[in-house]
Amino acid sequence: MKYRLADLAARIGAELQGDADCEVDSVAQLQDATAGSISFLANSQYLKHLASTRAAAVILSPELAVQAPGNVLVSTNPYLCYAKAAALLHPQAAFTPGRHPSAVIDQSARIAGDAWIGPCSVIEAEVEIEGGVFIGPGCVVGRGCRIGLGSRLVARVTLCSGTRIGERTLIHPGAVLGSDGFGLANDEGRWIKVPQLGGVVIGNDVEIGANTTIDCGTIRDTIIADGVKLDNQIQIAHNVEIGENSAIAGCAGIAGSTKVGRNCTLGGGVGLAGHLEIGDNVHFSGQSLVTRSFDKPGYYSGNLPAVANGEWRKTVARIRRLDDIMQRLKAVERRLKALDSQPQKGD
Amino acid sequence: MKYRLADLAARIGAELQGDADCEVDSVAQLQDATAGSISFLANSQYLKHLASTRAAAVILSPELAVQAPGNVLVSTNPYLCYAKAAALLHPQAAFTPGRHPSAVIDQSARIAGDAWIGPCSVIEAEVEIEGGVFIGPGCVVGRGCRIGLGSRLVARVTLCSGTRIGERTLIHPGAVLGSDGFGLANDEGRWIKVPQLGGVVIGNDVEIGANTTIDCGTIRDTIIADGVKLDNQIQIAHNVEIGENSAIAGCAGIAGSTKVGRNCTLGGGVGLAGHLEIGDNVHFSGQSLVTRSFDKPGYYSGNLPAVANGEWRKTVARIRRLDDIMQRLKAVERRLKALDSQPQKGD
Amino acid sequence: MKYRLADLAARIGAELQGDADCEVDSVAQLQDATAGSISFLANSQYLKHLASTRAAAVILSPELAVQAPGNVLVSTNPYLCYAKAAALLHPQAAFTPGRHPSAVIDQSARIAGDAWIGPCSVIEAEVEIEGGVFIGPGCVVGRGCRIGLGSRLVARVTLCSGTRIGERTLIHPGAVLGSDGFGLANDEGRWIKVPQLGGVVIGNDVEIGANTTIDCGTIRDTIIADGVKLDNQIQIAHNVEIGENSAIAGCAGIAGSTKVGRNCTLGGGVGLAGHLEIGDNVHFSGQSLVTRSFDKPGYYSGNLPAVANGEWRKTVARIRRLDDIMQRLKAVERRLKALDSQPQKGD
Repeated sequence: MKYRLADLAARIGAELQGDADCEVDSVAQLQDATAGSISFLANSQYLKHLASTRAAAVILSPELAVQAPGNVLVSTNPYLCYAKAAALLHPQAAFTPGRHPSAVIDQSARIAGDAWIGPCSVIEAEVEIEGGVFIGPGCVVGRGCRIGLGSRLVARVTLCSGTRIGERTLIHPGAVLGSDGFGLANDEGRWIKVPQLGGVVIGNDVEIGANTTIDCGTIRDTIIADGVKLDNQIQIAHNVEIGENSAIAGCAGIAGSTKVGRNCTLGGGVGLAGHLEIGDNVHFSGQSLVTRSFDKPGYYSGNLPAVANGEWRKTVARIRRLDDIMQRLKAVERRLKALDSQPQKGD
Repeated sequence: MKYRLADLAARIGAELQGDADCEVDSVAQLQDATAGSISFLANSQYLKHLASTRAAAVILSPELAVQAPGNVLVSTNPYLCYAKAAALLHPQAAFTPGRHPSAVIDQSARIAGDAWIGPCSVIEAEVEIEGGVFIGPGCVVGRGCRIGLGSRLVARVTLCSGTRIGERTLIHPGAVLGSDGFGLANDEGRWIKVPQLGGVVIGNDVEIGANTTIDCGTIRDTIIADGVKLDNQIQIAHNVEIGENSAIAGCAGIAGSTKVGRNCTLGGGVGLAGHLEIGDNVHFSGQSLVTRSFDKPGYYSGNLPAVANGEWRKTVARIRRLDDIMQRLKAVERRLKALDSQPQKGD
Repeated sequence: MKYRLADLAARIGAELQGDADCEVDSVAQLQDATAGSISFLANSQYLKHLASTRAAAVILSPELAVQAPGNVLVSTNPYLCYAKAAALLHPQAAFTPGRHPSAVIDQSARIAGDAWIGPCSVIEAEVEIEGGVFIGPGCVVGRGCRIGLGSRLVARVTLCSGTRIGERTLIHPGAVLGSDGFGLANDEGRWIKVPQLGGVVIGNDVEIGANTTIDCGTIRDTIIADGVKLDNQIQIAHNVEIGENSAIAGCAGIAGSTKVGRNCTLGGGVGLAGHLEIGDNVHFSGQSLVTRSFDKPGYYSGNLPAVANGEWRKTVARIRRLDDIMQRLKAVERRLKALDSQPQKGD
């Protein structure tokens, strides 16, 4: 897709400094850019490439705009403008509606005429698929699922029975929604399965990463609200609720019945224990373990970054001896106190 | 399914206090329950909903039974009774045996007449599938696999060649059993693959979660004993053995050749190093890293729960300075000792 | 496959001590070995089984060779010799080239005559598949992918559009390559998707484990170099680059734009933050969190191994009180200093 810089600037909400008629048709990194491409700089680590870039224009913050060698699209949020420009210049390929002959579709399924059901996908009974939905190859859509307008299952996605997906939601390969939660009652050492009777409800404009899993609720539903973004390999247990516009990085896990508020972020590998309540605007850094509720907005951490092994061994040994350190400190304090109260010779 | 309370009580091993003829047909949470449903209370966090519930009956411990407004099913293990009641009131849907025409089944496979092979599933040569087995859509059952009576592959499960599954075992979507273990020998910097020749043996009444992976053994088999319950996204490496009735929460990982005993539990995200021996009744809390064998029953931990970021930064800095703290403490001790032995003026 | 010991020794680069004409046809563990099998000892933990083994021959280091009861294949790298012997004695089954009739293959795909496309696999437009490639059942190969000579997709692998795979590369079930990276720009609280326009490039002789995910690049490609070995359930984010012969254990995660050098190893569950540069020959132990670049070869750690729960609770409490310990230590030091400078009575 080709745009005049002036038109592109208007569409992405940036201010153009330079040649309004210059045409661009692609995005590129600063160091790879060519005459037809625009680039951006959102991370100062890459500032070194700015002076020598051959990009037709660069999206920059007002502070950096003065350093650019050529055309600039100025914005207080360059990364957002870049995202919009990339979507305009590289629009997603349209698809031809229909059903691949190898798809297995139950006759009770209601599928909009402008949806696509890909090869080797299976659509079970009483499924409802709305307009513009794209079901890629190898998907399984279980009995009674509903998929809203314009949502997209890329490939090999599994929706277990009764899963409901909102509009414009994007689900990547290998994701599994609606699998049984891990509900077990103990009967004198043996585990008895607790039937998992609830569903999964996914809102609008949600994105769910590759091989992420979201279990159905035990009785009620597991709920992922509008605008939530989930990276790859995330595990969401039964009865979890995630509030609007929260974003969770890869390999995070949330145990059963925990509620996460709106506009939260979880770093990669974060683990939330079960039955917690996390408020709005709460942020956990990567690999933090969360064992209690946090209702106050803010940043929370609980991890120990890697250091050289020798240093680390000493640190672990010292941590193991903290009790000893404490006892010895107390002994020193007692001794000093005794010294203070001791009558000096000659008094 | 509809039950008289008296009949249900007898079936789930609870004592009925109230109307024997009252009929129920579903389970519900306390706050959502209606006249036809039963509920339960296993977590005191939800006690506030007891007084106002509209449930036909509530499953309660003897201590709480007196607080209930209506019919009570009394049990010393309410959650277990609930599990049994839910299974009776909401039995799993039966399936019609057969083979979907889109399934690809090798003619050497032996499949019981009352099993079901779902659409787009692939059954390779010399597979044996026993009575009542359900193979959902999109599964792959590799050459020579055996699946015992009444087991169930929900959808898109992969069993690599030679995997053996016991009876009444339930495997959720995306699980992969029998993939090659991570066996590598180093040849002057290059990694040479160690052929993975063993199999995977899964016992009876096992449950395996969505996207969980269990590698085959290097020479012998990887073994998951009867009654083991595995949550989603767990990684079990080659040659691991897990004893009866152990339960492992999501995102845990067990490295090669480690043996876990019976009735153990691993919290979410726990990591076990390779070649360890974990005894019976050993329990690890979430995200613990286990680097040595534990043979004594008990609870073990190794994680640092998240706190506010500012507090955390200070803590990490202090941990980094533990060596300095120790040195300064020793200096103080030496100084005090010197003071003690120092002759006082005038002696 | 059957070999004379003398021939096998020559093929695997070991020195035979014993009967050159003895024939072997399989590998086995020391304690299970029979007259026709060879065994090995690479971990001293299993030395107890050496004296009583019935193996036809044992692969051993020079130090242990004297302890063996029978024929010995001596090598300074017994595990490597074992790997080679196992590959010779148990060669991978050959496959008959062709296309299963249930495979869905776009007519624009170019597929070598000696490749195999398995049942229920989907090959999209403009795919190129070279000689000797094996595509197992249930795979999806997206538009424009290229797969080099002799590579193997075991089953249910997904390659999203534009993924390029080198030669002799092995990909296990459930792996997803080329899924969208987790790129989001924030627009006053709402997340806007950053189009993910790059690809994934996988080198030669790479192995990718079950349910591992590798995202495509944002603009450039995500790159996995020759000889890299990835275990199961690993998450590789967009724009990551991994250098030759690095090996990564299960459940590790690498965040966006991080570069890992050559011959590195990451233990299970290791997490690397984004935008880091890790040099060659850098090694992280299991579950370490890496938040800064490391360019110096060496071993690095950042984890706290599990201990008994009571001990752990005390340790966590002490860690929380490190600030208090530091303050009290400083007070003691000040007091001592004051004592030193205090004029003694009688001076």
